[in-house]
Amino acid sequence: MRYLITISYDGRNYNGWQKQASGVTVQGELEKALKTVLRADISTTASGRTDAKVSAYAQVVHFDYDGEIDTRKFIHSMNGVLPRDIKLMGILKTDIHARFSAKRKTYMYRMYVSQVELPLYNDALQISPNLDFKAMKKFAKLLKGVHDFEGFKASGSEVVDNVRTIYDAKFVRNGMYLDFYITGNGFLYKMVRNIVGTMLKIGEGKLNLKELKHELFTTYKSKFTAKPDYLYLVNVEY
Amino acid sequence: MRYLITISYDGRNYNGWQKQASGVTVQGELEKALKTVLRADISTTASGRTDAKVSAYAQVVHFDYDGEIDTRKFIHSMNGVLPRDIKLMGILKTDIHARFSAKRKTYMYRMYVSQVELPLYNDALQISPNLDFKAMKKFAKLLKGVHDFEGFKASGSEVVDNVRTIYDAKFVRNGMYLDFYITGNGFLYKMVRNIVGTMLKIGEGKLNLKELKHELFTTYKSKFTAKPDYLYLVNVEY
Repeated sequence: MRYLITISYDGRNYNGWQKQASGVTVQGELEKALKTVLRADISTTASGRTDAKVSAYAQVVHFDYDGEIDTRKFIHSMNGVLPRDIKLMGILKTDIHARFSAKRKTYMYRMYVSQVELPLYNDALQISPNLDFKAMKKFAKLLKGVHDFEGFKASGSEVVDNVRTIYDAKFVRNGMYLDFYITGNGFLYKMVRNIVGTMLKIGEGKLNLKELKHELFTTYKSKFTAKPDYLYLVNVEY
Repeated sequence: MRYLITISYDGRNYNGWQKQASGVTVQGELEKALKTVLRADISTTASGRTDAKVSAYAQVVHFDYDGEIDTRKFIHSMNGVLPRDIKLMGILKTDIHARFSAKRKTYMYRMYVSQVELPLYNDALQISPNLDFKAMKKFAKLLKGVHDFEGFKASGSEVVDNVRTIYDAKFVRNGMYLDFYITGNGFLYKMVRNIVGTMLKIGEGKLNLKELKHELFTTYKSKFTAKPDYLYLVNVEY
C-alpha cells in the first residue's frame, strides 16, 4: 500500500532533503522516525529534493508499506519521534507518485526591505529600500511561460531537458516582508536561487534588464545564486 | 540635548528591558553600546519596560547627551557594536519624553492555528483549530473602551490607578498565523499576557464568556498568563 504524507521542516539545520553517507538530512531523519514507529525499513520519495538549508512549509513524500496505518495515532507517534524542526502534518492512502505525479510546485523566497538588518526578520534576506523594484517586477513577468532555463541551472546538473513552464512569478508585500513566489511545473537544480540572484542584481542596477532580456533564455548564464537560507517550498499540487 | 531612538529586539534571549544587577537585559546591552560609541555614561528611558522574553518590532527610547550626533554614522556604529538580536533603526533630536509623552502603544500576540506544532512557526504560539474563535472575538470587543483592568494586572504590581483606555483589540489572520493586536494608552504589568491567557481559556470553553462578562472589570482576577515568548511591542505613538 502507498501512503502520501505532508511534512514541514526548517531546513537551516539540514544538509538538504536527500539521504547521504555523511551529514544530517531531512530524508534521513524521516526514515529513522518511520523505522521507529512502523518497525520496518521504509524508503521515501519526495516531490523533489530541496538543497541544504532550504525549508519547506509543505513537502510531499510517498512511501510503500504493507499494513494499515491509524492516521491520528501515526501523526502523533511520528511527531513524538521526529526532531523539533521536522514535523508531519498529514497522511493519506493513495496510489500517486510524490515526484512523477506532481503537476505544479510553488517556492517562496523571503526578503525584507530595510536600511538596517533587523533581529525579528532572520527568516528573510535583508534588501535595501533603494533597489529598482519596478525592474525586478518586470523581470519576474518575463519568467512566465515556457522557456529554456539552462542559464539558471547549477553547473553540475546533468539534466538534459531544461524547458520548464512557469505559471506565476510575483511579489507579495506584507509589512516589511517582500516575498517572491514562483510556481512552475518543475524547477532545475538551483534554478529558483539563480532566478532570485539575477533578480537582485537587476534591482541593484548591476544587470541591465533591457540588455538581459534578449539573451535570458539563450546565452545568459547566471553567476548569481541567492543564499538557500531564505528559500521555502510552499506547495506541491497533484 | 535629548535624542529619541527606535530599536528592535528579539527579546527571547533577554531578561527583559530593565537593567538589573544580574541577567542580560536590553537596556544593559544598549547602554553598553552607547558607552562604546559615544564614550560617555548614558542612561536611557524606554516608552515602557518589556518583560523577560518579550520582543519589540519598534521600542522607543530617549537619552540625554551633550553633543551633536551624526545620524547615519551613529546608526552604523551602534549596529556594529550591538548584539545581533538588538538593532537600532532610527534616531532623531527631540524634546519629548519616551515614557511620559507616549500616547498609544500597540502590542501583538502572535499565534498560529494548527493541529500539530510546526517548525517554521516558532515565533508564535500554537493554538488548536477547535477553539471557539467567535467567543474570543467577542471577548476582544469587550476590552475596548475605558475600564479598570486590575483583574489583568500581575499580583506583584504596586500601581494604584488601574484604569486604562483600549482603543482597539482585534485579530489579523495571515496564512496560518492569527495575530492579536491591542492598542491602548498604556498597559499594566503583564496585562496583555493576562488578557491573552483569559482569551485562550474562553476559546477552550474553560471560561464562560456570558458569566465572565459581568465581572470582567470588577471581581475577575486572571489566573491565566500567556507565555511571554510570543508577545511583541509593535508600535509607540506620540
